[in-house]
Amino acid sequence: MTTEHNISTMMQAMGQAAKAAAQSLALATTDQKNAALQAAAQALRAQQETILKANARDMEIAEARHLAPALLDRLMLDPARIEAMAGSLDAIALLPDPVGDVMAAWDRPNGLNISRVRVPLGVIGIIYESRPNVTADAGALCLKSGNAAILRGGSESARSSKAIHDCLKEGLRAARLPEEAIQVIPTQDRAAVGELLGLVQYVDIIVPRGGKSLIERVQQDSRVPVMAHLDGICHVYIDKDADLEKAVAITLNAKMRRTGICGATETLLVDQDVLDSHLPAIIDALKIAGCELRGDKAVQALDESILPAQEADWTTEYLDAILSIRTVDGVTGAIDHIARYGSQHTDCIITENAVTAEIFLTQVDSAIVMHNSSTQFADGGEFGMGAEIGISTGKMHARGPVGLEQLTSYKYQVRGDGQTRP
Amino acid sequence: MTTEHNISTMMQAMGQAAKAAAQSLALATTDQKNAALQAAAQALRAQQETILKANARDMEIAEARHLAPALLDRLMLDPARIEAMAGSLDAIALLPDPVGDVMAAWDRPNGLNISRVRVPLGVIGIIYESRPNVTADAGALCLKSGNAAILRGGSESARSSKAIHDCLKEGLRAARLPEEAIQVIPTQDRAAVGELLGLVQYVDIIVPRGGKSLIERVQQDSRVPVMAHLDGICHVYIDKDADLEKAVAITLNAKMRRTGICGATETLLVDQDVLDSHLPAIIDALKIAGCELRGDKAVQALDESILPAQEADWTTEYLDAILSIRTVDGVTGAIDHIARYGSQHTDCIITENAVTAEIFLTQVDSAIVMHNSSTQFADGGEFGMGAEIGISTGKMHARGPVGLEQLTSYKYQVRGDGQTRP
Repeated sequence: MTTEHNISTMMQAMGQAAKAAAQSLALATTDQKNAALQAAAQALRAQQETILKANARDMEIAEARHLAPALLDRLMLDPARIEAMAGSLDAIALLPDPVGDVMAAWDRPNGLNISRVRVPLGVIGIIYESRPNVTADAGALCLKSGNAAILRGGSESARSSKAIHDCLKEGLRAARLPEEAIQVIPTQDRAAVGELLGLVQYVDIIVPRGGKSLIERVQQDSRVPVMAHLDGICHVYIDKDADLEKAVAITLNAKMRRTGICGATETLLVDQDVLDSHLPAIIDALKIAGCELRGDKAVQALDESILPAQEADWTTEYLDAILSIRTVDGVTGAIDHIARYGSQHTDCIITENAVTAEIFLTQVDSAIVMHNSSTQFADGGEFGMGAEIGISTGKMHARGPVGLEQLTSYKYQVRGDGQTRP
Repeated sequence: MTTEHNISTMMQAMGQAAKAAAQSLALATTDQKNAALQAAAQALRAQQETILKANARDMEIAEARHLAPALLDRLMLDPARIEAMAGSLDAIALLPDPVGDVMAAWDRPNGLNISRVRVPLGVIGIIYESRPNVTADAGALCLKSGNAAILRGGSESARSSKAIHDCLKEGLRAARLPEEAIQVIPTQDRAAVGELLGLVQYVDIIVPRGGKSLIERVQQDSRVPVMAHLDGICHVYIDKDADLEKAVAITLNAKMRRTGICGATETLLVDQDVLDSHLPAIIDALKIAGCELRGDKAVQALDESILPAQEADWTTEYLDAILSIRTVDGVTGAIDHIARYGSQHTDCIITENAVTAEIFLTQVDSAIVMHNSSTQFADGGEFGMGAEIGISTGKMHARGPVGLEQLTSYKYQVRGDGQTRP
């Protein structure tokens, strides 16, 4: 047998086991799922030494391969990070269980009672880069929402992921749930990902988490539906009726609070009418915070240190301390710019004019549209949804933060007493 | 230029035009959309002669090609059917507009107000067989839900579809909405379908309506998400606590009311305990109604006219006056059979035992699960959802009947007064 054949057989078996586990999980009680999460959290704490040893070996290899410092930082575990993972499992146990929720119920004139009830999606495949904590978080979110998970992390974190996965399995066993509810693909062979993306008979949805190239590849190749966001090219638009103080504070926060997250603002749009009155203070605040600025000619005219923005700047997710700034002709100009260059993630208007705000909130076609608040609030936790597995910019199924509810489907239950259809 | 190149260029242009039209439609008022629907209904009535002439030409060609009588019947239009189409547009105008609905709204401790608001999906591609009325119905449902439509009907109905489409365009013009809101692919070249299924940058969702081979092909080839049901292998399960009268009436209705619809029952499961007490009366009723029966050995023992059921019978959607019958060991046996052979469409339990009913309703993983009522109620109209564009057996996005609401997505609107994220 070739290796490829082996991997195909292995992935089929994993898919089949996941589907069987999903059937049990769909019927598991909330208490049972919470018990599994809490036991897994305890196991993470108890197995701290084992996990740290596995992680040290991952780090050694990664350092020998000269991984970038940012990647090494993501990969690294210490006691505080392990405790954070365990705490996150405990927190997910405390979230409400969406499964079984009656979303709506009504009676028909013929006496039929119809209710729409939340059920798990089934089997979720998650593909992510070398962040060991995703193994715990993603596995736990799938478990709480009644879904079986097939996880595939980056190769650099393979040993750490395995050690964490062992703790999750311990939790499942303690709650008498099938261990196959959370599986980690045990090989780093890329063919395994290809197989996973084709397992339409077993896998209901794929959630890729990571950089643009990973997500593009998954969206291109997957025959299973994908829930993801490709880019987070978020905008703040300073309207002519913007409050200057809010404009400065929000722009600074939206760009600089954390530059590497998808809700960080990448382009600032400014109404030409307030270029002179509002932009200088914003520029000063950003420069003091260490942000590189790139602007159109009118923006550059305000400050000679501003670099010229190229066409590519309007479509670039810097994920860094860089901001592109463009002058626009009112809210319509802002809406047009966002429609053309945006990524339908999160966009914000700063204005004291309620009418203009509503135009922006209605006409900008993004998952999250905001008024007078920082784009960095684009987060399931900040929305009050508890933990999130990511943000979706697609319009199918879930849009915006993907929390427990968004990992469910529904079914209709119809109760009658002998009705036949005329 | 090759023809293929021409078709690719044409489909790109149609996609681009649809996306532009969708942006206008998303902002159209309910009154404007209703005016377009009502004007289109009037145009259908006024253009009756033109439509009938076009249809007569389609029928001539179809007859010369010796189309099956059932297909010819679907293709045929007469004044009553044209009036029914017009009436259906008027009825869709009366349905509530889902766009703009605030699905949920809440305040965060930091003062942010978050609301989830329904928005259209965008552009919907609909691929269907030679039923001219689908051109009107599908176009109207997309319009009312604020979506642009690209329609592709079967080649046999091309002339009828064009005449109906002309009326829809007349309605759009009368309401000052873009004509490109509803487009019909003007060529019967199969390459056009292939192009449509790849238009990920313009088309948000594909809805195929028709036979299994059409849907399989679309699901296999589409890079755009697909919403559909492949099979409707619906089951009725007669529990040991079933009321005999209900069992007979519901089984007869579920199988024979109309045999060609997706909610028609294809397999009857009977608890072994009531084989002798309940099944004979059901068999008699079905035989009188002209239904062919195929059963396992225990079922055949009750009536020598019953043919032996083969393994393939459990996975066949007959869409005809044929029923397969199997003995099972209680509700667990029924659930296992449905999990193995069903199509996750619609399944029903007949029982007077409320506990058993709940087990079935909870554990059968189908879009619609029923208690003591006919599977032929599996229909958006019967659910009180108004018109439907089809039934989805997938778990992503919409499950069960797909009405106006299911043709929408949502966005989050966040209103603040200067909040920044700590």
